[in-house]
Amino acid sequence: MVVLAVHGGAGGDGPWRGMTEADPQRLNCMHSLLSDIGARLESGALSALEAVTQAVEIMEDEALFNAGRGSVLDASGAITMDASIMRGEDQAAGAVVGVSKARHPIRIAYHLLKGGWPVMLNGEAADAYGLTKGLEMVDPTWLVTELRQAQWAKWKANKSAPGSTDEDDGAVLDHDGMGTVGAVALDRDGKLAAATSTGGMTGKPDGRIGDTPIIGAGTWADRNVAVSCTGVGEAFIRTCAARSLAAYHDRESLVASGKRVLDEVAPYGGRGGLIAVNADGELIVPFQTMLMYRGTYVNGAIEVGIGPETYDELSSVSS
Amino acid sequence: MVVLAVHGGAGGDGPWRGMTEADPQRLNCMHSLLSDIGARLESGALSALEAVTQAVEIMEDEALFNAGRGSVLDASGAITMDASIMRGEDQAAGAVVGVSKARHPIRIAYHLLKGGWPVMLNGEAADAYGLTKGLEMVDPTWLVTELRQAQWAKWKANKSAPGSTDEDDGAVLDHDGMGTVGAVALDRDGKLAAATSTGGMTGKPDGRIGDTPIIGAGTWADRNVAVSCTGVGEAFIRTCAARSLAAYHDRESLVASGKRVLDEVAPYGGRGGLIAVNADGELIVPFQTMLMYRGTYVNGAIEVGIGPETYDELSSVSS
Repeated sequence: MVVLAVHGGAGGDGPWRGMTEADPQRLNCMHSLLSDIGARLESGALSALEAVTQAVEIMEDEALFNAGRGSVLDASGAITMDASIMRGEDQAAGAVVGVSKARHPIRIAYHLLKGGWPVMLNGEAADAYGLTKGLEMVDPTWLVTELRQAQWAKWKANKSAPGSTDEDDGAVLDHDGMGTVGAVALDRDGKLAAATSTGGMTGKPDGRIGDTPIIGAGTWADRNVAVSCTGVGEAFIRTCAARSLAAYHDRESLVASGKRVLDEVAPYGGRGGLIAVNADGELIVPFQTMLMYRGTYVNGAIEVGIGPETYDELSSVSS
Repeated sequence: MVVLAVHGGAGGDGPWRGMTEADPQRLNCMHSLLSDIGARLESGALSALEAVTQAVEIMEDEALFNAGRGSVLDASGAITMDASIMRGEDQAAGAVVGVSKARHPIRIAYHLLKGGWPVMLNGEAADAYGLTKGLEMVDPTWLVTELRQAQWAKWKANKSAPGSTDEDDGAVLDHDGMGTVGAVALDRDGKLAAATSTGGMTGKPDGRIGDTPIIGAGTWADRNVAVSCTGVGEAFIRTCAARSLAAYHDRESLVASGKRVLDEVAPYGGRGGLIAVNADGELIVPFQTMLMYRGTYVNGAIEVGIGPETYDELSSVSS
């Protein structure tokens, strides 16, 4: 069997009440890529590593997700993007922090993984490394969309409003600004991979690094399980969420492990979600926010959506 | 009981053969800080968090360690420093990447931990954050020592030598260039903390991030155990070494967990070592390199050294 799952970010306070309509553009993007990449994963044309890379690239190109083109703007109004990727069989990994020119940050991370050393590159050096690999660089203005400019202006206005306090200065992870993307896959050879990419949070302070580029926090893959997380990054760093899930799954079911990780991040303000697949093809897509864009491909069956209500009610969808 | 342990980096190929003389300046630095900070930890004047911060600050000031003043030079001949810190009781954390002005990078990480959000700051933004906290900034030339300039010149000459291949271009983690520093502590209240600080590797490529600022890789602390690692960072990232040790220690002894982590990093080129203390006061200081500068304070007894032969022969030193 093969499995491919993707997420487009978790967001929103409170429980799912069925009152938010799913955005068809994002669902269609996920459905289309699951259909295409899932079939090629099924045929053996793609490895898990290639599948998650291509899945994330497609979501980076979809402007409504917060990664690649359509990334949210930081405090200065610029886009700085983070991404990481990991291959389960040998725990090879690649990660980039604060890139601003690459069309596909995840592809730079992929090349770092393939190159073997270094694993992690920062800022302009990461973009420059991508250029040496022949990757497409774009004008930073091409990455910016009107939607993200409007969200940034709203954040800026609230920040400057009379009566605003220091507490109001925080960056925003709301329904509008969410959209970190990720993918996990199990291929025909039983091999696993995970990838995650993001623009961060609207109004994030200059230099802030979240969990997405941190191997073990936002992304993890080993011989047993592959994980991609989304949410308030600081809590996922403090709990080393993705690696912790793998540790718990050594002793607990995948469902219990996913629930345990989300229970751990919650007290640290870590609203979010994750997707994970294990070597047996079991799959979970739990979240504790109001909603999470996510889609799954399991044995040819594709599901996309933004519910269900809470991760407590979610069980494995694999067969 | 209270426990404090420090390391000053692991390095050298092959087994310990008793042929390398320990450098008295580094041993004296460790002995002196263990005596001072250990006593204040014992009296209850210092928490584990304060103890590891001060211990690392003192080692950052010792020019023969590769952190703070005396950091190694990167490919461009500049100093860029990484550090991270974690408090076990609530897994609060702070980390800085690529700072170049702060005298004590670990103290910026400490203030990020205290501030709560963000956890991780990059480059100039991290230095600027330190300045807002009143921390001492220094002229970058003050950080540079003649020893590190000579090591860099040697690296540069080898890199440019006729007949050198791409493989020769790698950064250097040899006996001369080692010296990442770290500390772990258990205080009178039974609370744990860990901290790590480094200048990286001589000739490291621009933008390369190692394991030291990565929570879960170079540094970890929770209610059960505190860990600080040193060595070839990429392997410690790929194995999420510090967090993995904590996971293994849920089921295995501390000694077995430390050995397992070093066995895992080895196939990825991960020569190095670590120090770890658990909530029962058990302590390990294993390494798989030729030597590791390390010192321990346990119930008033201080030991410093660079042996023993291999981590296989090292057992817990706690009582």
